[in-house]
Amino acid sequence: MNKFDCISPLDYRYGSEKFTKFLSEEARIRYQARVEAALAKALAKRGVCSEKDAAEIGAACERVTAEEVYAEEERIKHDVRALANCIRAKVSEKAKPFVHFGATSYDIVDTASALRYKEATEQVVLPALLELERAWIEIALREKNTLQIGRTHGQHAEPITFGFAMAEFVNRLGNRIKAIESAKNSLEGKFSGAVGAYNATSMIIPDPLALEKEIMRELGLKPAMHSTQIVPPESLQDLLHALTSAFCVLANFSDDMRNLQRTEIAEVAEQFGEKQVGSSTMPHKRNPINFENVKSLWKQFMPRMQTVYLDSISEHQRDLTNSASARFLPEVFAGLATSAERLAKVCKKLVVDEKNMRTNFEKTKGSIAAEPLYIILAMHGHPDAHEAVRQLTLEAEKTGKPLGEALEESEEMQPYIEKLSVSQRTLLNHPEIYTGKAAEKTEQVCLHWKKELLL
Amino acid sequence: MNKFDCISPLDYRYGSEKFTKFLSEEARIRYQARVEAALAKALAKRGVCSEKDAAEIGAACERVTAEEVYAEEERIKHDVRALANCIRAKVSEKAKPFVHFGATSYDIVDTASALRYKEATEQVVLPALLELERAWIEIALREKNTLQIGRTHGQHAEPITFGFAMAEFVNRLGNRIKAIESAKNSLEGKFSGAVGAYNATSMIIPDPLALEKEIMRELGLKPAMHSTQIVPPESLQDLLHALTSAFCVLANFSDDMRNLQRTEIAEVAEQFGEKQVGSSTMPHKRNPINFENVKSLWKQFMPRMQTVYLDSISEHQRDLTNSASARFLPEVFAGLATSAERLAKVCKKLVVDEKNMRTNFEKTKGSIAAEPLYIILAMHGHPDAHEAVRQLTLEAEKTGKPLGEALEESEEMQPYIEKLSVSQRTLLNHPEIYTGKAAEKTEQVCLHWKKELLL
Amino acid sequence: MNKFDCISPLDYRYGSEKFTKFLSEEARIRYQARVEAALAKALAKRGVCSEKDAAEIGAACERVTAEEVYAEEERIKHDVRALANCIRAKVSEKAKPFVHFGATSYDIVDTASALRYKEATEQVVLPALLELERAWIEIALREKNTLQIGRTHGQHAEPITFGFAMAEFVNRLGNRIKAIESAKNSLEGKFSGAVGAYNATSMIIPDPLALEKEIMRELGLKPAMHSTQIVPPESLQDLLHALTSAFCVLANFSDDMRNLQRTEIAEVAEQFGEKQVGSSTMPHKRNPINFENVKSLWKQFMPRMQTVYLDSISEHQRDLTNSASARFLPEVFAGLATSAERLAKVCKKLVVDEKNMRTNFEKTKGSIAAEPLYIILAMHGHPDAHEAVRQLTLEAEKTGKPLGEALEESEEMQPYIEKLSVSQRTLLNHPEIYTGKAAEKTEQVCLHWKKELLL
Amino acid sequence: MNKFDCISPLDYRYGSEKFTKFLSEEARIRYQARVEAALAKALAKRGVCSEKDAAEIGAACERVTAEEVYAEEERIKHDVRALANCIRAKVSEKAKPFVHFGATSYDIVDTASALRYKEATEQVVLPALLELERAWIEIALREKNTLQIGRTHGQHAEPITFGFAMAEFVNRLGNRIKAIESAKNSLEGKFSGAVGAYNATSMIIPDPLALEKEIMRELGLKPAMHSTQIVPPESLQDLLHALTSAFCVLANFSDDMRNLQRTEIAEVAEQFGEKQVGSSTMPHKRNPINFENVKSLWKQFMPRMQTVYLDSISEHQRDLTNSASARFLPEVFAGLATSAERLAKVCKKLVVDEKNMRTNFEKTKGSIAAEPLYIILAMHGHPDAHEAVRQLTLEAEKTGKPLGEALEESEEMQPYIEKLSVSQRTLLNHPEIYTGKAAEKTEQVCLHWKKELLL
Repeated sequence: MNKFDCISPLDYRYGSEKFTKFLSEEARIRYQARVEAALAKALAKRGVCSEKDAAEIGAACERVTAEEVYAEEERIKHDVRALANCIRAKVSEKAKPFVHFGATSYDIVDTASALRYKEATEQVVLPALLELERAWIEIALREKNTLQIGRTHGQHAEPITFGFAMAEFVNRLGNRIKAIESAKNSLEGKFSGAVGAYNATSMIIPDPLALEKEIMRELGLKPAMHSTQIVPPESLQDLLHALTSAFCVLANFSDDMRNLQRTEIAEVAEQFGEKQVGSSTMPHKRNPINFENVKSLWKQFMPRMQTVYLDSISEHQRDLTNSASARFLPEVFAGLATSAERLAKVCKKLVVDEKNMRTNFEKTKGSIAAEPLYIILAMHGHPDAHEAVRQLTLEAEKTGKPLGEALEESEEMQPYIEKLSVSQRTLLNHPEIYTGKAAEKTEQVCLHWKKELLL
Repeated sequence: MNKFDCISPLDYRYGSEKFTKFLSEEARIRYQARVEAALAKALAKRGVCSEKDAAEIGAACERVTAEEVYAEEERIKHDVRALANCIRAKVSEKAKPFVHFGATSYDIVDTASALRYKEATEQVVLPALLELERAWIEIALREKNTLQIGRTHGQHAEPITFGFAMAEFVNRLGNRIKAIESAKNSLEGKFSGAVGAYNATSMIIPDPLALEKEIMRELGLKPAMHSTQIVPPESLQDLLHALTSAFCVLANFSDDMRNLQRTEIAEVAEQFGEKQVGSSTMPHKRNPINFENVKSLWKQFMPRMQTVYLDSISEHQRDLTNSASARFLPEVFAGLATSAERLAKVCKKLVVDEKNMRTNFEKTKGSIAAEPLYIILAMHGHPDAHEAVRQLTLEAEKTGKPLGEALEESEEMQPYIEKLSVSQRTLLNHPEIYTGKAAEKTEQVCLHWKKELLL
Repeated sequence: MNKFDCISPLDYRYGSEKFTKFLSEEARIRYQARVEAALAKALAKRGVCSEKDAAEIGAACERVTAEEVYAEEERIKHDVRALANCIRAKVSEKAKPFVHFGATSYDIVDTASALRYKEATEQVVLPALLELERAWIEIALREKNTLQIGRTHGQHAEPITFGFAMAEFVNRLGNRIKAIESAKNSLEGKFSGAVGAYNATSMIIPDPLALEKEIMRELGLKPAMHSTQIVPPESLQDLLHALTSAFCVLANFSDDMRNLQRTEIAEVAEQFGEKQVGSSTMPHKRNPINFENVKSLWKQFMPRMQTVYLDSISEHQRDLTNSASARFLPEVFAGLATSAERLAKVCKKLVVDEKNMRTNFEKTKGSIAAEPLYIILAMHGHPDAHEAVRQLTLEAEKTGKPLGEALEESEEMQPYIEKLSVSQRTLLNHPEIYTGKAAEKTEQVCLHWKKELLL
Repeated sequence: MNKFDCISPLDYRYGSEKFTKFLSEEARIRYQARVEAALAKALAKRGVCSEKDAAEIGAACERVTAEEVYAEEERIKHDVRALANCIRAKVSEKAKPFVHFGATSYDIVDTASALRYKEATEQVVLPALLELERAWIEIALREKNTLQIGRTHGQHAEPITFGFAMAEFVNRLGNRIKAIESAKNSLEGKFSGAVGAYNATSMIIPDPLALEKEIMRELGLKPAMHSTQIVPPESLQDLLHALTSAFCVLANFSDDMRNLQRTEIAEVAEQFGEKQVGSSTMPHKRNPINFENVKSLWKQFMPRMQTVYLDSISEHQRDLTNSASARFLPEVFAGLATSAERLAKVCKKLVVDEKNMRTNFEKTKGSIAAEPLYIILAMHGHPDAHEAVRQLTLEAEKTGKPLGEALEESEEMQPYIEKLSVSQRTLLNHPEIYTGKAAEKTEQVCLHWKKELLL
């Protein structure tokens, strides 16, 4: 197969070896074989089959390939039974009956999915997010004192530092990493049979719940408190929500960077390769293509939560209308991981233009004083400080004078002006120091998450 | 205003007094006033204003109405400043400066939202869900031994009990109630000013983070670890996910009941009022209108998570594109609560038709034995029991004989038939006892959640 | 009812009298009564009842109120039967049997919905969109020569005019208005009874399809080619798609304006009222609150298409799981109309800052020449003009020289420089004339849509 | 590449050669090359380059492969420029300048997308849908007289025929096929340059709009009335809506079939292969796996419309946040086509169990008479026929008597009984003839769509 014959961008463009290992169809079948092996092992422990039988089955499970399973499925039109047949074909007559013994397909499928998504989260998604978090913390701490104008509504508001702006994302992503960790640790498996009532396994051993626990312990999963043919959908749904939610943080960050990279703002930039072509007809351009890419992938993957919610409804002891759709779930993991990896790479070389930040700040620094002025007036007892400052600002705007000057010239303000302390006067003339606790907060946030995430 | 002039079904049809108390615009403003009062109280504690000032402001906050705030907003075109003006108008000149002192609008708005959604969850949503959980547990325990055929793919599968089927929902809803509780307890408030760096409050007191903590303690909320003009969206997003996820459980239950109420199945039914009209032209009909209603509301509210995810992206220290959309959030709480209340009411009088369950079960009981037979054959060493039983089933189908008979007549099977124990023979002829651990599991699940949820 | 006791922002905040007239519950019932009246009229025409009976019923239909229908529904638990009862109560014994005669509830409900949505589209939505289109055309024509830098990826690209930028939205909205018109004219009604096979009406008259046509003609609707209990969902779905799609155009425009209103760009602005408060603590701010509002409402209403798609699946001759959800449909019409009205109002007073547009343009005008230069070089036979210009641009960037100068100094370029015509030289030094067909295209687009939409 | 290393089910499981031809990455690049060739041809027609140059370029375009383009992109980090370079490498020095001449990347990309989606619709999607429509028409006509109980709310309602039930889908799908055809014919291309104002092409020729028209004519597309760097998103959005909407029809049909295949209903069935395994532990099961599969794919692809709406917002003359997400669009075409193909295959061998339809009908046939009885009573002047019949039905239910008997015994009803005509009496005792116009309507619908779609 030529990879450009693929339809999915995840297969022909955004893939990686790591994704293949956990998220491909080959991986899916390998994980199912692992569950079959764990079943055999547990059966042996409970004395249903011999250790030797289990060992044989375990060895066979390691050798099963997607290709042969698909060939067998082609013949019998049932995917999990095909897997069982392939394993059975590799073991002795004596061991054969214990392959898939007492299992319904979804004992294997759902348990394998939980296992696979758990490990994909641990090995693919979380490392990428942690790498990104690390990159963000580094920028935040490095730039904790870099003056930047804070913006609300796209308008200059009050001063912050660029490190403080980064700390927002450090905090939000840190929080999401914890949410993802918690969700992946709550993933559940099951070994309760075709309708969840342990009908089949009850015939094999007296305590089928213990057998289920045994298998899950072997795999590092929790058994569901109650299952039907399938595991209750909520634990996986929670993980998908946590992933989607983290994706929103990445998208928000990307949007901010895209905006800060605008020609008129130019406070940050993606580093540009030597041979890189900016645009096919405008060679001078430096486009935020990586930030755009991440925002774009978010638009593709965020709506997939709808599918997850839709799939959580299954009639009676289950219908199969979540089968094909669930096959697309690995794409969400891949989409988030590729985005995080991309962002981490860009952020490590993020160009921060302190000079432009200052230049932009200068544009409105005069009026920034409005807020502290209003506070100061109120502290000195002005009964309607906000309205008074609003009037002064309008006045300043009309006459083109700085706010400070408008203040000095206002007769009504004289009693308050006299009460100003030295540091208050300084502040009104130097709004660049009006950054509150920006730097301290940045440090606090970064240290908190470094500790919390062991970075 | 005539309520039938309303556009929203939540206002003209599905509303309740409880919803009004927490979810209306009046409530929204009342909660904002509560935050303003908490601010004044904290300022007094920190010595910024006097206790008397704070008390005056607190009293004023209790008297503010939506109507006057809207009138003031009409004049000045800013809603939170309008609220502040209304409060200021009710206090002495001396107290005036301390109204909204050091606050940015969203210190109030976001904190009030967190508070309101927390209390709406506690007072409206959770009571409704717990009532439903209670009703489900009652049915589950009562019907734990009521034989029902388990269904997968809409096809008869293996036997369960109706209580066991209910236990699925007991477990899933119990789990969601815990998720909702946990999410609502994680809601965060903030008092960090216009861009989150405590710029304004840093001028008022040396430790503005302590002031923030003070206010949040007063209100029973957590301060965000980092905020911009707004609280990080994730905590509210998590709550909305938990609500949506719980809604999925209700919708799944409703679908199952709708299907069990089908004319051909008729295992359960909504109780029908004496004067109730089933259909405008088919007077004999008994429609599952409440289950349909809940499924329908789910279709309206589930997609709202998209809005929540979209709103979690806000440029820089915030844009305001989540303002109007967030005004619709209370509807999700109302939608879920009204659905839960409706289901609880129906479930308390749910008609369970044990006889029809038995009749339906009889339809396929012959072939149900296929699964235990396959297990038994495998236990007795048959090397390909599954395939052997598949052949027997096809044979039985072709000849119209029961599976047991086909088994007895099969020459190939004679060696295995001889090995059958008495209890194995009994089971093959009495598939109605093949319910595994259905009853025990039902009890276990119900007891777990009764304890966990203090029901 | 106090309007602040409402939960929906459409009821307490964004409503209008026009919305009430078409989109409220009162309106819904009034439209259903209109269909009942049309039925009576058609029955009379076909000789089933007398003209007098029909006239009586028609008069009664005009007097029915939501309040009485709800009271009756409370009693009998069926909404449409309640409506029929209320009408019946207002007519003579002789006319009574012909009220709702031969109808199933959804003959009335679905037909009334089609009618209501058609008229709401005509009377509420389209006028608002046309008003907006008019405002946009005015700006486009007025500013067709106003130089603006075109932006791609947020980066300066090639020059356009502001009128040309507006023409994008003129064209897209014009196109959507046509799509909405076409969709609302395709709305279908039905009068085919409980399962769509004209079972009941076949007993009343020999040609029930003719009766259906008669009723639809009376109401100005098309009869569905095939219906079950309900009208096929596609015609309404198409209308909702067209509305949603138009909403996307409004949201895109709002985003563009928000960005052009950024402090650093400042090319457009919402006009600001004298007493308007920009921010509760930053009195100097001029926030794009109306553009933000529209973007925000879009985030609320765009995802509602999911509900529309979900509701298009109805089991067999229909289930009722689209009933409650469909009650929320009028909100989409209201949301779009209120957004269009708001934008139209703002656009009529949009402040366009030609000076800032020029200033911004100047920032990068040197490098804008790269594209025409590349074209010119290619025209003069350069075999790899794009790469050559990319190199020149890098050179210019490194040395800080304008591109033109770098060109002149390049030895390799000498043969091509000699071939430059006067107008080509002029262009390279005056990139502000490199606006292509911006002005002409603007005119062409505006004239097209003025004619097409009769503006 | 091993196909089981793929992540997307469309690549490892649901693919086909036809999909590859139109929907793969290889196809994407081939289509872009076709647009480059059309450009060269148009340039030659306009005398900008020679016919020979154009022919050279055209030939080169046919030889370009995805593999080489990707290799070049790896080097220069720009995909469309990479394509141009690959073409240029295959032509003479003289022709080189005219490769991609005057084009911006998205002149190529968006035009190629329109072309590709148009042809994929024509060659892949529509044939599959038409095949399905054909299969449905065949069933509908064949079963137009097969009695089936109509169901609303999952409850028996009034009788129809199975052909009439099928006619619903014939009509809805027919309508959607027309919508898809219309939408694909409205797809637009563009050749207006980097910001849409024909800046570059204005330098090359005096009438760049004519050049654009020329290229589009060559490709069979419409030029957009106005474009920026990109084509207005609405034409593609409309196509995606039409596809999604058609998908809803397939999902609705699948749901109905799943339900009719329920063990208790058993009116239809998927045909089952000889060696097919129904379930891994329940060999007797016959699951509606194909109908489930289609419903499931719908759940995956329906929410993708969110991405389409999100992608229709692009800042200014475009941002690139719709680039990666748009790469996933071909999947929707593949998802719909594979579903339609699967359904067509199943429907051609659909097992319709007329006997079970009759048996199910018998269950409630007694009460079906309620509706005609109510109509008849009303026709004979009963002032409140509906309520009277409701009472009779309750009575019949209580006593277990058939409705007809309850009627005969009712004293109050005597005057009306006397007025019954023979045919009315017959109908009340033979509800199976109460099918209205079911058969005629079925024919009418099928003939209409056969003609309309040339089937």
